[in-house]
Amino acid sequence: MKESYLIPAEKLRTFGEEVFQKAGVPKEDAKTVAEILVEANLRGVDTHGIYLANLYVRRLQKGLINPTPRFRFKQKRAGVGILDADFSLGQLSTLEAARKAVEMAQDAGIGIVAVKNSNHFGAAAYYAEYCARRDCMGLVMSDGECDVIPFGGREKFLGTNPLCCCIPAGTYPWFCMDMATSEVAFGKIRAAAEAGKAIPPNWAVDRNGKPVTDPTRAYAAVPMSGVKGYAVSLIIEILSSRLTGMPYGAHIVRKFDDWENRAFMGHYVQAIDIAAFCPVDEFKKRMDELFADLKNQPRAPGVEEILIPGEPEWRTKSRREEEGCPIGEEDVNLLRQLGEEFGVPFSV
Amino acid sequence: MKESYLIPAEKLRTFGEEVFQKAGVPKEDAKTVAEILVEANLRGVDTHGIYLANLYVRRLQKGLINPTPRFRFKQKRAGVGILDADFSLGQLSTLEAARKAVEMAQDAGIGIVAVKNSNHFGAAAYYAEYCARRDCMGLVMSDGECDVIPFGGREKFLGTNPLCCCIPAGTYPWFCMDMATSEVAFGKIRAAAEAGKAIPPNWAVDRNGKPVTDPTRAYAAVPMSGVKGYAVSLIIEILSSRLTGMPYGAHIVRKFDDWENRAFMGHYVQAIDIAAFCPVDEFKKRMDELFADLKNQPRAPGVEEILIPGEPEWRTKSRREEEGCPIGEEDVNLLRQLGEEFGVPFSV
Repeated sequence: MKESYLIPAEKLRTFGEEVFQKAGVPKEDAKTVAEILVEANLRGVDTHGIYLANLYVRRLQKGLINPTPRFRFKQKRAGVGILDADFSLGQLSTLEAARKAVEMAQDAGIGIVAVKNSNHFGAAAYYAEYCARRDCMGLVMSDGECDVIPFGGREKFLGTNPLCCCIPAGTYPWFCMDMATSEVAFGKIRAAAEAGKAIPPNWAVDRNGKPVTDPTRAYAAVPMSGVKGYAVSLIIEILSSRLTGMPYGAHIVRKFDDWENRAFMGHYVQAIDIAAFCPVDEFKKRMDELFADLKNQPRAPGVEEILIPGEPEWRTKSRREEEGCPIGEEDVNLLRQLGEEFGVPFSV
Repeated sequence: MKESYLIPAEKLRTFGEEVFQKAGVPKEDAKTVAEILVEANLRGVDTHGIYLANLYVRRLQKGLINPTPRFRFKQKRAGVGILDADFSLGQLSTLEAARKAVEMAQDAGIGIVAVKNSNHFGAAAYYAEYCARRDCMGLVMSDGECDVIPFGGREKFLGTNPLCCCIPAGTYPWFCMDMATSEVAFGKIRAAAEAGKAIPPNWAVDRNGKPVTDPTRAYAAVPMSGVKGYAVSLIIEILSSRLTGMPYGAHIVRKFDDWENRAFMGHYVQAIDIAAFCPVDEFKKRMDELFADLKNQPRAPGVEEILIPGEPEWRTKSRREEEGCPIGEEDVNLLRQLGEEFGVPFSV
């Protein structure tokens, strides 16, 4: 077990805000991006947390991300629009897309924004939650550089293509699903390899497309439930790339490896206004009824509690707001070095 | 292997149309429902095929399905409406919902119809394809009587909750995914039991919630990929039931067993008008580009071809339109008996 440090969220946010500003991002935008990254740490989704500041700043330095984009939003119909992100940080464009989606939903009942010319947006939940806070159901998708084979294939083709949905509730925490559409994210396979543990045969394949249980031989991830995840993942590719002519997974720049080319990321953001269907309070009661029923279901052996999607992250957030966010030594060093370069001290 | 008969689709349609009429369904409606059922046979989805005519007619006879419903559609916003199905056959209400969704999409770019007071709608693909034929992306969902445990639970709670999406393409067949959100449909577990074969441990659990490999001990199905399918399935329950106050899986009447109570089924139908985003021809070219790329991907050992979701059904349909639809002896007897009762001969 590597050492990790518990760092208050506020400290991480301030650090992020300052380094992004040093990299040319305006203050308010820098603050927003830092907040979204640290929100992932708070929710326990550390793979999408503050350590990404290093990646983003490097790509800003190279001119591959635009620090001062001019968004061009074109509303095409009452419920549909396209946002040209002008190569902004994906956090900024996706949040703007969520704003527009909610605005359209408040008018037409439903609002969809297809985002083009964007970048990695971090964890999807933030934007879906933005919608839920405004009494809308939020749905957020993105394609991404490929790590996943198509069903029947052996070469990486699909992104891990996140699918995120957040739905408001009453006294229970809201419903929030934010998942990769591969059987598991590649990070889990890497973790098993580091721990010297075998993986189930439906997680990954080797170079020849054969299922592996030895994670060190894993080459590509497998769609969840095989053909089902393959189809769901393709829908996400299509909604994220084919409506706007963006490249899809197999042709997306690898953000950690390609330092020559801009990424052309596409996202899909949708908001449904609950009030268009029924009074919001009534809907929330119906959600609570469903959740209470779930909570009272008999449990499988060894299970302490049936959880509502989003509940584990909700709890982690409450805890980490008190305790701080655990940041591993490697990431601490990464951020410290980044800070030194820009005259922004990163202390633990 | 039980015997089955190859019966021309036209013959099955005519039979269905006539028995539904005898059960009080107006001619045009009877024709529509028969067509939708036989379409499932043609596509190879025999679990949703013409044999269901028997179930529907029995429920019509008992007054549990309304043969002459009066639909009440209320458009709530430019892109959103609610259809009260008045306890109609689910085929009729869902097709009407698809019509309204496409109409709204042609105006607002996107149309959503929540259907309430409906019944089993058969295979979802027909309605999503209806949208795709009109250059819309169709998305269709329904809850259903429960067969699936929640993640961590051991009692049936969720329906197998179909998720169906159809997206138009150009020279390639359209994309069409129509899947249960359980790891497999319960029929596959039953088939393994009949064949005396073991099942993988992620398909089903026994009475105590323990994974089983002996299908004869299977009590309930498991969500696809565990927690992921659990979340997706809940979204479908919510969209199908919570927007309109319909019951969800755990409280839905079991249509084959409960002969006292009406079902109160809810569905969710959505159409996105491609033309709201880009010229339809351009979009179709982009779809073809994606599909051609997929087709050219290197294949896993033993795989002859990478398939686009919907392609297997497309091919089965071409074949069965020539050869006829295979109907098992048991179903032939069921339909023959039904026909005799109503003076509609069913010959093979």
